[in-house]
Amino acid sequence: MRTLHHHPLHPLSRVARVMLAEKGLPFDTVIEKPWERREDFLMLNPAGEPPVLVEEDGTVVAGGLPVLEYLEEAYPDVALMPREVAARAEVRRIVDWFTRTFDREVTENLVGEKLIKRLSGQGHPYAPAIRAGLANIQYHMEYIAFLSERRPWLAGSSFTVADIAAAAALSCVDYVDNVPWDKVPEAKDWYARIKSRPSFRGLLTDSIPGCPPPRHYADLDF
Amino acid sequence: MRTLHHHPLHPLSRVARVMLAEKGLPFDTVIEKPWERREDFLMLNPAGEPPVLVEEDGTVVAGGLPVLEYLEEAYPDVALMPREVAARAEVRRIVDWFTRTFDREVTENLVGEKLIKRLSGQGHPYAPAIRAGLANIQYHMEYIAFLSERRPWLAGSSFTVADIAAAAALSCVDYVDNVPWDKVPEAKDWYARIKSRPSFRGLLTDSIPGCPPPRHYADLDF
Repeated sequence: MRTLHHHPLHPLSRVARVMLAEKGLPFDTVIEKPWERREDFLMLNPAGEPPVLVEEDGTVVAGGLPVLEYLEEAYPDVALMPREVAARAEVRRIVDWFTRTFDREVTENLVGEKLIKRLSGQGHPYAPAIRAGLANIQYHMEYIAFLSERRPWLAGSSFTVADIAAAAALSCVDYVDNVPWDKVPEAKDWYARIKSRPSFRGLLTDSIPGCPPPRHYADLDF
Repeated sequence: MRTLHHHPLHPLSRVARVMLAEKGLPFDTVIEKPWERREDFLMLNPAGEPPVLVEEDGTVVAGGLPVLEYLEEAYPDVALMPREVAARAEVRRIVDWFTRTFDREVTENLVGEKLIKRLSGQGHPYAPAIRAGLANIQYHMEYIAFLSERRPWLAGSSFTVADIAAAAALSCVDYVDNVPWDKVPEAKDWYARIKSRPSFRGLLTDSIPGCPPPRHYADLDF
């Protein structure tokens, strides 16, 4: 069976899970705690980061963006990127925004401080980082709203990995209950449409032992 | 004319320049200082980061990885990735390593502290960051040596964007004279082969006013 090594609260691991589900590809999962630097996992990805996809024939695809591009190239029947090269560039621009900029400005400050530090025994949350994350997320929510007002989906007329990357990033922050949904209704409407997709259901049933998500997390009428 | 908005000491901007040259695509350049957040540049890339490629027909491709994937898709005649999907995943794994991990562990600590801080008027270098960068680069040099001993090029049998991304990252650190070339001869041999490619010449003649590179920087027999 195809196996995905992932961490439930790692945004690019979530992108891989949603893409596999959208494309109808069955997979087993192995949870990796990257801070443990497990030796067998380092053999699969020397960078020590999830996700890593191991295909049934033994092909190893290591790292979030490599997995994303691989799934799109290897299984093009359910397309999650448009065909036209300029439109693909716009998808990748938004993926880049949410997997890099949002990660640095929001996820690390909120999920990193409040949850990953605790899980990995790295000490207490740093309050100024949390304050920065809470300030920064507002700006990103407004960017989602800005795009949603102009286009049916974030990168254009169709649902793409840009939507998946943005929703995966937001869902991690929603797990620690730090998304100001009611302040940005356009972003909430867009997220509600993604939440109702069957591919997203696996993410919404995640629960880290000792750190459950808030009640609205899995609720489609949040 | 096709235009590349770039910063000379930004690794992914260098990747774009080398790819354009390898593919034989003529281009004009505009230097962007991302810390100035120039309004016309933010219209091209709201994330405010170089590189941004503007094609003659007005198509805008914003961000380092989007530009990389776009150039490969739009101009496949000179291929800088293999065709087979698993081999492409290996190229992207190494690109990811050098554009993200190396950047965070080495480039930000050395080029960021010693040069970008000065250029952008952000104060003095932070000595512990420089010490960390100098320690970290050794590990990355050894990884280049490890790959070079097993393969003709970093990702396999052919020259790819994996080599370009690694060499672009190293070349920025070489500009501030912090690459321990003589300690890792395999990595030096690999870099010497890249340095002699015509596509790399533009990078080797870069000189930031007031911050010239060390003498060996442009030397093919360094």
